[in-house]
Amino acid sequence: MSLALHSQAKVFSGWHKQYTHTSDVLNCDMRFAIFLPESASFDSPVPVLYWLSGLTCTDENFMQKAGAFQKAAELGIAIVAPDTSPRGEGVADDPEQAYDFGLGAGFYLDATQPPWNQHYHMYSYVTKELPKLIEAHFPVTQVKSISGHSMGGHGALSIGLKNPQQYRSISAFSPIVHPSICPWGNKAFSHYLGDDKATWLAYDSCELLKNSTQSVPILIDQGEADNFLAEQLKTEYFVAIAEQMDRDIEVRMQPGYDHSYFFIQTFIAEHLEFHARYLK
Amino acid sequence: MSLALHSQAKVFSGWHKQYTHTSDVLNCDMRFAIFLPESASFDSPVPVLYWLSGLTCTDENFMQKAGAFQKAAELGIAIVAPDTSPRGEGVADDPEQAYDFGLGAGFYLDATQPPWNQHYHMYSYVTKELPKLIEAHFPVTQVKSISGHSMGGHGALSIGLKNPQQYRSISAFSPIVHPSICPWGNKAFSHYLGDDKATWLAYDSCELLKNSTQSVPILIDQGEADNFLAEQLKTEYFVAIAEQMDRDIEVRMQPGYDHSYFFIQTFIAEHLEFHARYLK
Repeated sequence: MSLALHSQAKVFSGWHKQYTHTSDVLNCDMRFAIFLPESASFDSPVPVLYWLSGLTCTDENFMQKAGAFQKAAELGIAIVAPDTSPRGEGVADDPEQAYDFGLGAGFYLDATQPPWNQHYHMYSYVTKELPKLIEAHFPVTQVKSISGHSMGGHGALSIGLKNPQQYRSISAFSPIVHPSICPWGNKAFSHYLGDDKATWLAYDSCELLKNSTQSVPILIDQGEADNFLAEQLKTEYFVAIAEQMDRDIEVRMQPGYDHSYFFIQTFIAEHLEFHARYLK
Repeated sequence: MSLALHSQAKVFSGWHKQYTHTSDVLNCDMRFAIFLPESASFDSPVPVLYWLSGLTCTDENFMQKAGAFQKAAELGIAIVAPDTSPRGEGVADDPEQAYDFGLGAGFYLDATQPPWNQHYHMYSYVTKELPKLIEAHFPVTQVKSISGHSMGGHGALSIGLKNPQQYRSISAFSPIVHPSICPWGNKAFSHYLGDDKATWLAYDSCELLKNSTQSVPILIDQGEADNFLAEQLKTEYFVAIAEQMDRDIEVRMQPGYDHSYFFIQTFIAEHLEFHARYLK
């Protein structure tokens, strides 16, 4: 498991670095980014927040646009941002190269249908291979939380709910909470997982929450002016299930905010403070 | 002078908006971006920081990557970011479409040589037309400061030094301080202004500082790990002149930082606090 440094820049006295590596799970070369606060050292390792980005993104969008590093440096938290799908010439893409399926749209699941099952195993990559790599190479502890935006909000919620012992806390911006019943989820799940909708439920955060037995603290921010709210995100389903359960779940509807990184920028410090309470 | 709204997003309770308009000075359509803090209203207008970006940038780079809005909202400062050159099909570009000349590389001067003198009047646009437009349409005062990065640091310093009564304070990240003697400046100035180097001095911040009679406070941050420092930026010339003058100029060499927006992100709050002291 060797890493090649792709770029590095000092930021808030810590470091933003990008690395490439060959992923066994995805069967291709991948790039990820890591922010390491100045306080991180092998004598004094720090916990990690995994950030999962949305449709069309790479490891770069959050790192460049979220404005997260000042607070992460202050709290002593590393941030790891993987890409949003397998990449490379041999990796199948949507025949129409649509933005919402194939490259840049891995949906953080393990595909079972050909040709997608050759590379599209983002679930196993994010939950197993990547943390193993990070913990082997960087001054971090095994203590971790998970967050993400839109498709990555779906990723953070579904991964966190499926692995309550692995993540201390979960947060999301504008998540796709109920992919089984929205157009983005329908398209992706039918190709990656096939037509048997029973298999979809294993990656649907509403279903996972309903059936979960262990409580992991969850914070969700959702902009009320988000163009995707009604058709794709469907936050109200998650809220309705959460209200029936006695769980530590907060869903904040934010008036006037849209689906952009300007929204994320506004509340990322509060998400980092939320995670920091459980990462210590 | 009419404006067309291109985009808007709520951020830190204020608004980021992009507008397009027809520029008389540049003889083409232009886009700019503005951040307006929540506190700005026509009953309670706020001062403006003009931000000038570097080579290849548009109005978007700073607004998306600098992480400036939390502090600007707190201080009650609007930020205006113009594009870095005239734009459009009729606007001449470098025949080789190089990144450092022509489109995206207006160098904040008024070109005198054909074909550049048809559109390339960024100096007049930034100092006259744009402020007039901003002050006519938005809840801002006429009180202003100026800042920028790299080519935009050159723009901020040269414009501020040439117009000490118009700007309360000047700051820059990684500025091209002595364009007359560096490759980027040589290429741009010889095309835009012609071969008579005497005309170049009117846009060279080292020359302008040497000959300036009015003192405007200046703050410069320069990364010591900036790949462009020795060949293009030449900060040491500006420092040497400043040291011989009894002026309010601070140049901070920042160990380990490079030329990127990660560097800007790290110190932008301190620049905003610096400007706020003079904008009140």
